[in-house]
Amino acid sequence: MTYLEKLKHAQEKNNSWLCVGLDPVPGRLPLPALRWDEPVLPFNKAIIDATKDLVCAYKPNLGFYLQWGAAGIIALERTIAYIPNDIPIIVDCKTGDIGSTQAAWGAGLFDEWGVDAVTVNPYVGADAVLPMIAERPHKAIYLLARTSNPGAAVFQGDIQKSDSLSATVVSQSQQWEVSGHLGYVVGATYPEDVAAVRRLAPTANFLIPGIGAQGGNLEAAVQYGPDAAAGPVISASRSIIYASAGEDFAQSARAAAGQLRQQINEKR
Amino acid sequence: MTYLEKLKHAQEKNNSWLCVGLDPVPGRLPLPALRWDEPVLPFNKAIIDATKDLVCAYKPNLGFYLQWGAAGIIALERTIAYIPNDIPIIVDCKTGDIGSTQAAWGAGLFDEWGVDAVTVNPYVGADAVLPMIAERPHKAIYLLARTSNPGAAVFQGDIQKSDSLSATVVSQSQQWEVSGHLGYVVGATYPEDVAAVRRLAPTANFLIPGIGAQGGNLEAAVQYGPDAAAGPVISASRSIIYASAGEDFAQSARAAAGQLRQQINEKR
Repeated sequence: MTYLEKLKHAQEKNNSWLCVGLDPVPGRLPLPALRWDEPVLPFNKAIIDATKDLVCAYKPNLGFYLQWGAAGIIALERTIAYIPNDIPIIVDCKTGDIGSTQAAWGAGLFDEWGVDAVTVNPYVGADAVLPMIAERPHKAIYLLARTSNPGAAVFQGDIQKSDSLSATVVSQSQQWEVSGHLGYVVGATYPEDVAAVRRLAPTANFLIPGIGAQGGNLEAAVQYGPDAAAGPVISASRSIIYASAGEDFAQSARAAAGQLRQQINEKR
Repeated sequence: MTYLEKLKHAQEKNNSWLCVGLDPVPGRLPLPALRWDEPVLPFNKAIIDATKDLVCAYKPNLGFYLQWGAAGIIALERTIAYIPNDIPIIVDCKTGDIGSTQAAWGAGLFDEWGVDAVTVNPYVGADAVLPMIAERPHKAIYLLARTSNPGAAVFQGDIQKSDSLSATVVSQSQQWEVSGHLGYVVGATYPEDVAAVRRLAPTANFLIPGIGAQGGNLEAAVQYGPDAAAGPVISASRSIIYASAGEDFAQSARAAAGQLRQQINEKR
């Protein structure tokens, strides 16, 4: 089964384009999780149990685990193993090194951990992508096109202009010969930007962050996000997993995920 | 002690601008290391023991550890703890996410592990750098300027031209208000490129990879690498740590490191 087939299957089964970002933050973990000596894994398990019939994917971000050192990466490895097999896992690590290093990232994330997709930073060029999905037909890369942070435009430029860095990244990378799927990370902060990437990459899947706490635009994500093979992966993290810091944290996360899924579906 | 003071101290003590990249590759680990169930840590310890009086820094690359999953990250954590305190540690991970994620990377690498410097990818802009060294005066970031891979120029452009992406990254980032040190990763493949970055950033420290197996130009690294505070960090990995696959691997690594240190020093 290809990545897009697996994604589409999860989207249909759970009637959802929602992806939950599993980003543990020490100061925000709810009280019940803090009763554990190592709270990250039990926290993630409770969030997964409470939301697994509401999402199309989970997206743990490597940096949030590495802040606990090796203990955090053990929790990440176990979290990945705990996620049900039919829900795609996207590791958000924005890796972007040269050939031999990216081959090692691919071996670790795709082969050792078995995740389905990885985010990649395009600064070094095709050498960051090809060692990961040139020969992994069932895996996917989401390449950073337009990020959702305030200072993104300084280097990325205006993606609506064809000579900007971000537009060049999308149009150039469309020429790369990959056997896995090459999608794009497109921040939803500016609706016209999502439309611009869709014009440049008509058949690519989009990972759209910044919908929850970052205040991105849901209409644009729903209008320009879908491609012919699947719907977009619309990701929210803090607004769902930290919906409550109390005993009801998992129920509250479920309620917040259900609400956002419904908001997305009402616009479809 | 600032990062540059620590680096300069190590450079003077060991009369060396050489940095050894600690990049474990499954198929290249020498026979004696493979006798261990988990070979990475004993391999690294042997390399460190054999070279610690010949180097100015060690540079483990995160991706090469992650290929073993959490077990690799445990080996990395223990490797970092094993490196003598007076030798700077640069974690090469080319992280480049937005604000809250980069704060987590900084907490993990600088605070939890205590490393001295980290490589960062500039694609998302200042948000990738400031959460890490705006308020860590004793730490350093090496921002990717010009990488040493074949396809680097596709997006990075010609760094000798002021309107290229790579030149813009260097000139713009010089304006960011950091309390730690902001240096640059400059591939030595093209000598004129190293000269160009030196003109754009007269006081920045340079991390110069690609000298060994990748065949970079040592003259350029030595001529344009030094700044007023310290010498450059000239990094080689495969040509040193895999100098021999046999029983003499540590001695051979020492010989290769000593030879490269001498080649560098003869050009100074």
